[in-house]
Amino acid sequence: MKVSVEGASCSAIGPNNKLVFAPGLLGGTNCANSGRISVGAKSPLTGTIKEANSGGQAGQYLAKLGIAAIVIEGLPQDGKLYKLVVGKDKCELNPADDLKGLGNYATVDKLKAEFGEKVGFASIGPAGEWKLAAASVAFTDMELRPTRHAGRGGLGAVMGSKGLKAIIIDPSEGEMAPLADKDAFKEAAKRFAKALSEHAVTGQGLPTYGTDVLINIINEAGGLPTRNFRSGRFENADKVGGESLNKITVERKGEPTHGCMTGCIIRCSGIYLDEKGEYVSKWPEYETVWAWGPNCEIDDLDAIARIDRACDDIGVDTIDLDAIARIDRACDDIGVDTIELGNSVAVAMDGGVKEFGDAAGAEELIAEVGKGTPLGRILGSGAAVVGKAFGVRRVPVVKNQALPAYDPRAVKGVGVTYATSTMGADHTAGYAVATNIMKVGGDVDPLKAEGQVKLSSDLQVATAAIDTCGLNAIVDMVNAKYGLSLTGDDVGALGQRVLTMERDFNTRAGFTPADDRLPEFFKLEKLPPHNEVFDVPDEELDTVFNF
Amino acid sequence: MKVSVEGASCSAIGPNNKLVFAPGLLGGTNCANSGRISVGAKSPLTGTIKEANSGGQAGQYLAKLGIAAIVIEGLPQDGKLYKLVVGKDKCELNPADDLKGLGNYATVDKLKAEFGEKVGFASIGPAGEWKLAAASVAFTDMELRPTRHAGRGGLGAVMGSKGLKAIIIDPSEGEMAPLADKDAFKEAAKRFAKALSEHAVTGQGLPTYGTDVLINIINEAGGLPTRNFRSGRFENADKVGGESLNKITVERKGEPTHGCMTGCIIRCSGIYLDEKGEYVSKWPEYETVWAWGPNCEIDDLDAIARIDRACDDIGVDTIDLDAIARIDRACDDIGVDTIELGNSVAVAMDGGVKEFGDAAGAEELIAEVGKGTPLGRILGSGAAVVGKAFGVRRVPVVKNQALPAYDPRAVKGVGVTYATSTMGADHTAGYAVATNIMKVGGDVDPLKAEGQVKLSSDLQVATAAIDTCGLNAIVDMVNAKYGLSLTGDDVGALGQRVLTMERDFNTRAGFTPADDRLPEFFKLEKLPPHNEVFDVPDEELDTVFNF
Repeated sequence: MKVSVEGASCSAIGPNNKLVFAPGLLGGTNCANSGRISVGAKSPLTGTIKEANSGGQAGQYLAKLGIAAIVIEGLPQDGKLYKLVVGKDKCELNPADDLKGLGNYATVDKLKAEFGEKVGFASIGPAGEWKLAAASVAFTDMELRPTRHAGRGGLGAVMGSKGLKAIIIDPSEGEMAPLADKDAFKEAAKRFAKALSEHAVTGQGLPTYGTDVLINIINEAGGLPTRNFRSGRFENADKVGGESLNKITVERKGEPTHGCMTGCIIRCSGIYLDEKGEYVSKWPEYETVWAWGPNCEIDDLDAIARIDRACDDIGVDTIDLDAIARIDRACDDIGVDTIELGNSVAVAMDGGVKEFGDAAGAEELIAEVGKGTPLGRILGSGAAVVGKAFGVRRVPVVKNQALPAYDPRAVKGVGVTYATSTMGADHTAGYAVATNIMKVGGDVDPLKAEGQVKLSSDLQVATAAIDTCGLNAIVDMVNAKYGLSLTGDDVGALGQRVLTMERDFNTRAGFTPADDRLPEFFKLEKLPPHNEVFDVPDEELDTVFNF
Repeated sequence: MKVSVEGASCSAIGPNNKLVFAPGLLGGTNCANSGRISVGAKSPLTGTIKEANSGGQAGQYLAKLGIAAIVIEGLPQDGKLYKLVVGKDKCELNPADDLKGLGNYATVDKLKAEFGEKVGFASIGPAGEWKLAAASVAFTDMELRPTRHAGRGGLGAVMGSKGLKAIIIDPSEGEMAPLADKDAFKEAAKRFAKALSEHAVTGQGLPTYGTDVLINIINEAGGLPTRNFRSGRFENADKVGGESLNKITVERKGEPTHGCMTGCIIRCSGIYLDEKGEYVSKWPEYETVWAWGPNCEIDDLDAIARIDRACDDIGVDTIDLDAIARIDRACDDIGVDTIELGNSVAVAMDGGVKEFGDAAGAEELIAEVGKGTPLGRILGSGAAVVGKAFGVRRVPVVKNQALPAYDPRAVKGVGVTYATSTMGADHTAGYAVATNIMKVGGDVDPLKAEGQVKLSSDLQVATAAIDTCGLNAIVDMVNAKYGLSLTGDDVGALGQRVLTMERDFNTRAGFTPADDRLPEFFKLEKLPPHNEVFDVPDEELDTVFNF
């Protein structure tokens, strides 16, 4: 008798999961910022459908080769590692056991020796090989460093389960994507680039301070989760904020404005150097700085004094950002989501494994992940597993995925997104922070329950469409490239269709409204300084997808 | 604004979970085997409603005090340990930090010194204090040994979350339960006792060989899960079966027939001694022997040779049962479910942590649990967490609870029960093994998909009613005790009502038909020797509760 295994119910690390790598609809064109790559599969972390995207060169290279998607299926019968070499009319699967156990940096070094520097790499570190639920997929940037990650949901573990250590993308003989209407495309692309460069956020804030510019903004709003979501304000936030990041980088003659992929005009990254001027990491993103800074309370003077001894010669003022940059690099190398792992460590601190504020302890814990010790396996399996292992009740996850850097009690619109997103707790699925805090696209009081569901719903629809296109706005370019005549309404309908399909997958995978909830403690504990709980009613949460 | 937390969605180790201890409806009477105790809460392991029951003295003692249930709510504000002292018109909560970290055996020793030997104890070991998802609640037997456990679903962790280290039940001044119709009760009780003592299983098989009598029977049927569910037959099954258990016990002058509670006439337990005649443990149950024997393959001659050196002076022939008896005692002492932990270790072996067959290695792993090391925390969190931590795809759990000792591909009726039970994988919820293998109550071919759903459904209804009563059959006694006139149909209706309420809880907790499924590998991998997969169609599984 034939027994079928329905896709949505498959084991995320089993033979029936599919791992998809896809550039955006405008990939391979001159459109600004069109080169991001999307990775999708059923998530080993959440059990839901999962899409995570990344900068780096891979998206643009795939698009130039005319590849709409790479889909990896099955499991290797021999339990060995492989690498996939993709080029013009070329797709080869070759043995890669020589890369076994290597971090992403060492992996890329070996691949460069074999394939040169005119290619792009996607790879997993040991975390992915071990199929840890926080494992990421790394993509190389313009300098061929594995600093860009599809971080969330453990997609690196799916890649590891398929024995795929790396993908090498050789764009030579590839070409720019054909355009149905060149003039219309050129005009729309120019208009889009102008909008980006003239906007205060994308034209000034992000290039100067990186995404870390948000630390002081969100702290001021009382929504910066501190000490495993115990407070919305971190006394020493400015020490780790974007302004400090820029200052230190300028002092050390690092690069404070840097793009991670060809065609980016925002250039929100930077190059972080140590005191001796040596490369440490790319600029840690806001979410990373938050996860290891405020949320693990890596700042207080006692901790700094302790670390002062441990970390040779690094000045006190900059200790935190230095530690965070090192942590960022270590996460990139091991191949883990910094948001998930930061939450893992904060929950472990809550469980008494280390003390809050112990930066050296946090670095030790990351080293455990890299070594694959039992403690490292716990941490690398994500915050929910850490909570189970150490009996911690206050675990900030939705659908098993850890919360990002905005407390849902102080930014309630993004709380609705966390609770209801098809992806588990994910700020990017409907970034209500923009409207709640920055007052972009309206003004919905972040502390009131009213209006948050509509806000999140609208944003989730728009985002679902935009994710599919690969970047912000640009219906005109899509039309010009493909010879279509889509309208704004069509984009909205596309977003609704994507969300409906994702919800359908999750329903078949066993998710219900009971999963569209924040953890209990957000309803029970008031968050200083606003002393709010998350009070958007469950019945309202259940209307987010009533299109 | 008031924010309510709905019961079914509460954190299992949070303030809103309720922990219930209740004797059966016939507790406190002379009815044979009426003294079992039931423990209930939302499960930290599965997230479902959970009932686990146990022998020992507590049920009878509570019933004699006229206590229908003890319900524990809230969380201790001070994070300290407490003990609850229950007696005639007495209920005191006293500090118990002196018991912190103690195993169940040492805990009971200290409690005996304080409360004497004419009481009953319920307690948790360190696993419960650490809130590990495999933690059990221990109950003392007639000799005041903590050998009886409400093992499944992590109820020990719920007790630990409430800071409750122990309950002391003093039955003095308690009295037998009043009977509405003494003569009718006496007659029915006599009839019931006669049926038990004259039946081949309860009158002969169980008293002589313990529940371990099943090893050879299930092995013969090809349904004894071996090496993490890779085969249904274990070559050396007889070495660990009930016949060997009896033989060794007789040789060492242990007790091969022993009751664990007053009023038991089956007496399926025994006292297991080591070669020197020292007490090791009560007889390990069939599920325990299976979990550590066939499923971890603790038997092969190489392993025995290795262990031979490690375990001083214990003869080769009996090494396995000796090791299993020691493991059983260690699990009792730490306070963990032997089924869950045995599966944890088998999955860890599948992940390369130890080799299958390494009995000394298995004992080392249990010691890790007792020490609370990171590896111990992983194992103590149950098989699903082990699978996550070590990237193992073949994890035999339903709703996160590990499968018991019958392979669902060779005993398909119990496979339906595993998949659909409100409790997660649980053989006791609808023991189709009786009909599939022993041909009790009918004959449904264990290897065919046909008829299994109806069989499991009927058994689950009957069992739900029987669990509520506290033992098998006996409507007459319930009627005679309470002055009722229930019929067999009423009992069926009661069973349906209980299941419907449990299903409703689980639905509100977020469970759907997608959770009523066996893990994928049971559909993909054929089980030797019958080379069957689990092929009961999903649509049929979804009809189990169509009453």
